[in-house]
Amino acid sequence: MKAIAVEPGAGTPVIVDRPRPEPSPGDALVRTLRVGVDGTDHEVIAGHHGALPDGDDRLVLGHEAVGIVEDPNGTDLEEGEFVVPTVRRPPNGTNEYFKRGEPDMAPEGEYLERGIVGAHGFMAEYFTSPAEYLVRIPERLAPLGFLVEPISVSEKAIEHAVASRSAFDWEPESALVLGNGSLGLVTLAMLETVLDIDRTYCLGRRDRPHPTIDLIDDLGSTYVDSRETSVPEIPDVHEPVDLVYEATGHAKHAVETVDALAPNGVGAMLGVPCDQSFEIDGGRFHRELVLHNKALVGTVNSHRGHFEAAVDTLSQLPTWFTDEFVTGVYGLEEFETAFETGDEVVKTAVEFESI
Amino acid sequence: MKAIAVEPGAGTPVIVDRPRPEPSPGDALVRTLRVGVDGTDHEVIAGHHGALPDGDDRLVLGHEAVGIVEDPNGTDLEEGEFVVPTVRRPPNGTNEYFKRGEPDMAPEGEYLERGIVGAHGFMAEYFTSPAEYLVRIPERLAPLGFLVEPISVSEKAIEHAVASRSAFDWEPESALVLGNGSLGLVTLAMLETVLDIDRTYCLGRRDRPHPTIDLIDDLGSTYVDSRETSVPEIPDVHEPVDLVYEATGHAKHAVETVDALAPNGVGAMLGVPCDQSFEIDGGRFHRELVLHNKALVGTVNSHRGHFEAAVDTLSQLPTWFTDEFVTGVYGLEEFETAFETGDEVVKTAVEFESI
Repeated sequence: MKAIAVEPGAGTPVIVDRPRPEPSPGDALVRTLRVGVDGTDHEVIAGHHGALPDGDDRLVLGHEAVGIVEDPNGTDLEEGEFVVPTVRRPPNGTNEYFKRGEPDMAPEGEYLERGIVGAHGFMAEYFTSPAEYLVRIPERLAPLGFLVEPISVSEKAIEHAVASRSAFDWEPESALVLGNGSLGLVTLAMLETVLDIDRTYCLGRRDRPHPTIDLIDDLGSTYVDSRETSVPEIPDVHEPVDLVYEATGHAKHAVETVDALAPNGVGAMLGVPCDQSFEIDGGRFHRELVLHNKALVGTVNSHRGHFEAAVDTLSQLPTWFTDEFVTGVYGLEEFETAFETGDEVVKTAVEFESI
Repeated sequence: MKAIAVEPGAGTPVIVDRPRPEPSPGDALVRTLRVGVDGTDHEVIAGHHGALPDGDDRLVLGHEAVGIVEDPNGTDLEEGEFVVPTVRRPPNGTNEYFKRGEPDMAPEGEYLERGIVGAHGFMAEYFTSPAEYLVRIPERLAPLGFLVEPISVSEKAIEHAVASRSAFDWEPESALVLGNGSLGLVTLAMLETVLDIDRTYCLGRRDRPHPTIDLIDDLGSTYVDSRETSVPEIPDVHEPVDLVYEATGHAKHAVETVDALAPNGVGAMLGVPCDQSFEIDGGRFHRELVLHNKALVGTVNSHRGHFEAAVDTLSQLPTWFTDEFVTGVYGLEEFETAFETGDEVVKTAVEFESI
């Protein structure tokens, strides 16, 4: 079968021929429909993040997949059901995090990530997976099923942020998304249309006209150009916000988020910056956290429950949004286009089988 | 009646004569028994924190009080009941935070603090208070009732920290208290004896022998001398910890806490540092938060529910601990001694009426 693989740091993705996988007991065999491309894929391709599977010199890419069950192989799935796979797998047998259904809370070394860390991904005509890691999705949502994984990451982030505010009465009325990449934009859509936050803002550093800024406008959100208004200036220029969702990976944003928050607010951090040293007013940062009961919550990955919530969220996103948001779905014969990052690109996917 | 007041920043506390207060409707009149002294009092005395009541040039000190109801004045309290007053009061009538019983979540300008910000404290022979801000305490605990307020601050901090971890299975086995002042030590006792955390550590910068280090030893905790082991070194020298409780007000500790935490851990911040600029590796700070699902939660003050929980906690603290912890209770004739900060001092109180 055909698969899309990369030698991290030393090339661009290429089509390789690999044997069609045989499902082990407990696994189902899935025929891949579509697989999304995101920033993590580009970091893996560049060799900045991730790890090869033991003994392999290439990694099959892809962690945002949707497929159709080809062979349930005795699991409780049925042939023809549409499914989305979760990403993390236990490295050796299992461990406490996977046993309790919280692989997203496993520390380094206690997980593999398909298509990212030490395990092949889903960009292949077929993949196998333990049935417990396959989440059902209705047929009508299957063409957008590759959005379930990124949405699940935000489901977790928002769940953890809300939990941190659960000891008191907290009803967020305003939210700021840092970053107008695909994760930031789909989260903005969740905040605006599903969670019904009154006022939202989205920070980016792009000039109008730009399709991401059109999306921000169309969602009824306010675009904040970081070259004109820095994160700490947002309370003065706009308003202090109850919730910050950080998806830039810009190291200064973790500290600056505290300045953007309203009293009792929370910042959910999702970016993964490299080392970067700079000076901060640590006294002010510390004092603002304390005197205004603010919180910062770091969050990574997601578990099966978040994928299930994401399927529900996806069903509630307006069609006009997903139509504008997905700027390209490319067949295997033009799969390279899905990895291009031109100015008109928001979200792309590779299609292995037409739906 | 006699009261202990100060001209913030311009003197030491003195005894002043003030009219005995008359309870308004809804207020009870309370005869003061004991009032604790803490770091906030010293900051108020030095003029670094707090504000005078409108139109006054002196502030009556004291926010850690216990008293006995002298005149219930038609409230549901009874004469002779022992009570501890909460600290925050609404500045003008009331507001949403006080209405829902969460004055601790009110932002600046939406509260006064008795003995600290814009309202006279409890270091007087009598005080009045709305009955809703008076928390009953059993007679046998009344001699230590001045510990209820500081314990309530930690009840809130721990409640908020635990809430931030409530979206997953979290059972903290290790905790680190930053600071061996009185708030740090009483919290260490809570963590060791009431919350039953397996392994605790307490950071200070004092030489042995010292009464606070004796207390740490006697609690079965491990003393960490910050001059030998910095906060980021604690995981290597001891272990990464599930919970950090910061009570130093040292600005670097908010950032360094993230290095001391185990994956999925949380740091509760309580100190109030002044502005202080320094360089950090912000990339590492940000990345550690994200990739290991860590959180920082700032927390200040406490509400009535936390005071009620604190009464329960106080009842569970071992007698040997409170005996060693309270190093002096001084009558009005020697009240100055309660404000001394010698090397043998851990926790002191002023006694207005012997129990």
